[in-house]
Amino acid sequence: MEKDLLPGARFRRGELLNRDCPSREVLKRLTSRWSLLILIALDGNTLRFGELRRKIGGVSERMLAQTLRLMEEDGFVKRIPYEVIPPHVEYQLSPLGQEARERIIGLADWLEENLHQIIDNRGDVSADAEQS
Amino acid sequence: MEKDLLPGARFRRGELLNRDCPSREVLKRLTSRWSLLILIALDGNTLRFGELRRKIGGVSERMLAQTLRLMEEDGFVKRIPYEVIPPHVEYQLSPLGQEARERIIGLADWLEENLHQIIDNRGDVSADAEQS
Repeated sequence: MEKDLLPGARFRRGELLNRDCPSREVLKRLTSRWSLLILIALDGNTLRFGELRRKIGGVSERMLAQTLRLMEEDGFVKRIPYEVIPPHVEYQLSPLGQEARERIIGLADWLEENLHQIIDNRGDVSADAEQS
Repeated sequence: MEKDLLPGARFRRGELLNRDCPSREVLKRLTSRWSLLILIALDGNTLRFGELRRKIGGVSERMLAQTLRLMEEDGFVKRIPYEVIPPHVEYQLSPLGQEARERIIGLADWLEENLHQIIDNRGDVSADAEQS
């Protein structure tokens, strides 16, 4: 029973609208810019650090390493070290990460499809503002 | 045909993994902490500013106003001014915002359900690190 209670809190289930619920911080981490793009880039792929970095345009080595560490900590990413010479590490989504990815891919696909409309909306609002 | 091209870019469709694609910035805005919580709070609701603020624990007046303005600009939120005395304004999701919300709610529900597992994962990683 105790396992159902979050440490130091009274939440049996996340409550995102409650400022005291730890789900807030988990959401923040999971939806950070690079976390989202890592989920998308690792979709169906097992990649080395360098491959992942090339796939995600614009990410620095430092930000990628830091974000991968947090995602490993939360259990979204699995780090697979190979004890060969030279040693190397590969990254893939854990089962939990795959579940998160399914939700994220839906959002990403939708956004990519609707991008023009969103950009057009901005133009309309600016035009309205200029006219008034 | 020209309408399909983004201003100043060569993207007919968003490409989130491309650093030059404007979809990156749209994703960043849409998945910012307060944008996500506004989408969740306005799910099926039309709310005044104060009501919305009370619903989203911990948001400051300034951050809420600023985020609502960006979401209105992108076409996710509709601002409805009432010319009564005293004047007041209500906020609701636009059809585009409702589509975004559907994708977000899936992610939020999943996260709230899996929160304990994610928090537990953190404990496991820390324990592993201490042992090694």
